[in-house]
Amino acid sequence: MSPRLELSRLSLNQITVEQWSLPEVVEGCGRAGLTMLGPWRHKVAEVGVEEAGRRIRAAGLRVSSLCRGGFFPAADGVGLRAADRDNRRAVEEAAMLGTDVLVLVCGPPIGRDVEGARTQILAGIERLVPHAEDLGVRLAIEPLHPMMISERSAIVTLGEANDLAERFDAHRVGVVVDAYHVWWDPRLYEEIARAGRRIFGYHVADWLVPTTDRLQGRGMMGAGVIELKRIRAAVEDAGYDGPIEVEVINRHAWQRPGDEIVTEACESFLRAA
Amino acid sequence: MSPRLELSRLSLNQITVEQWSLPEVVEGCGRAGLTMLGPWRHKVAEVGVEEAGRRIRAAGLRVSSLCRGGFFPAADGVGLRAADRDNRRAVEEAAMLGTDVLVLVCGPPIGRDVEGARTQILAGIERLVPHAEDLGVRLAIEPLHPMMISERSAIVTLGEANDLAERFDAHRVGVVVDAYHVWWDPRLYEEIARAGRRIFGYHVADWLVPTTDRLQGRGMMGAGVIELKRIRAAVEDAGYDGPIEVEVINRHAWQRPGDEIVTEACESFLRAA
Repeated sequence: MSPRLELSRLSLNQITVEQWSLPEVVEGCGRAGLTMLGPWRHKVAEVGVEEAGRRIRAAGLRVSSLCRGGFFPAADGVGLRAADRDNRRAVEEAAMLGTDVLVLVCGPPIGRDVEGARTQILAGIERLVPHAEDLGVRLAIEPLHPMMISERSAIVTLGEANDLAERFDAHRVGVVVDAYHVWWDPRLYEEIARAGRRIFGYHVADWLVPTTDRLQGRGMMGAGVIELKRIRAAVEDAGYDGPIEVEVINRHAWQRPGDEIVTEACESFLRAA
Repeated sequence: MSPRLELSRLSLNQITVEQWSLPEVVEGCGRAGLTMLGPWRHKVAEVGVEEAGRRIRAAGLRVSSLCRGGFFPAADGVGLRAADRDNRRAVEEAAMLGTDVLVLVCGPPIGRDVEGARTQILAGIERLVPHAEDLGVRLAIEPLHPMMISERSAIVTLGEANDLAERFDAHRVGVVVDAYHVWWDPRLYEEIARAGRRIFGYHVADWLVPTTDRLQGRGMMGAGVIELKRIRAAVEDAGYDGPIEVEVINRHAWQRPGDEIVTEACESFLRAA
């Protein structure tokens, strides 16, 4: 097993405290002694990217990644061009916020066309890579759990994300390993090893039994059944020693005081991640 | 695409009309002009296997498969032996009901031990095969959707089911392809081709968007986003020409008159499966 975690590895993914604005989460990180944040674009947009960057820098926080670009599939050329524009903008926002990692949630199929979506995703990444390279931003494909295929992502296995990433330079396109999304996979450990230096991020949460909400029903680390320590060891054996984002999407937690959630996140991270 | 379906290919999986007892579903099949039934063991047990078999035969119905054996993982030897006894009994019930296919839902992990569960599943199948062979019953491993891993099955991809099946004689252990469970898989079509003559059953339902219930929220064929005709064509190209079970697990449907559900099942089968 890996050495004991320190809080210095923890990056707070902002969706964990969706009830907070960007300024609020920056202040909350400070109160908790955290040094890294993973902001979401809709929260950044509320204050504007310049102001968000200013506050994050003023608080001495590092941005581990920006969530999220992607959503490539579209029904027509107008939709594809709109997705391209939004993704170029996401790359620019990442650079402005001082992170070199843009998370890509690759978007659901249009209707029944899963294969077409996967083709559009590859083409969309191809179009995005030069702009990302210009700005020094790496693209991190995040496979989501297969139960989210129709709402969020046609890319649902780490193997498929690796297949996509390997079409590009290893310094430009990689993957995010999110334990919640990939833990069920019988090929998990070989695909983590295969990803190797292409692992641009590692996210943790836990799978509650039962899971009553497919999209917003995650648990704090240790509250569920994922072998988190084993998966972290595999990710570290593959060469990753960067930030570990706590991304606990849970709509019940969003009804509670943010500081309570951050405290729980820190405690469960140290104990169970 | 495959030729147009006939109702003679349809087997009514009993869980589609969970509101009905075994005698009721036998009568309902008769009213709908159906010739095949896929009974569930808890419904068979209500009337006893001899009486169930008698009624099914008297109605001239064929049993396409029996749902279900499996649930191999256990926390201790007592649990493992109980699972073995139940699985041997399931094989016997299949034979008594006149079907040569027993569906195996291979059971969830105990706690966090997914790998241990998979090891127990292989060992459990190994212990069951000789008895199944003696009674002329084939074992059909059904991979379930990864969102069901903690409640139902540690086997969640067709690839993994194929890996398991290939350890045994191709006439003894195979797979069930259930479109609802496997449609999301980027390796779907290659794994269907690989399964080939080991496909012992094909099940259909549809994936609703949104899916509001992980376990009991399936739709009738055509109501969702699964490319059912394409998947059927792949299953048929792989060599399967047997019964197609309609297995629409939907708790809302269970509140409605069974005959309405059977009528919808037949119509959507002919139109969209």
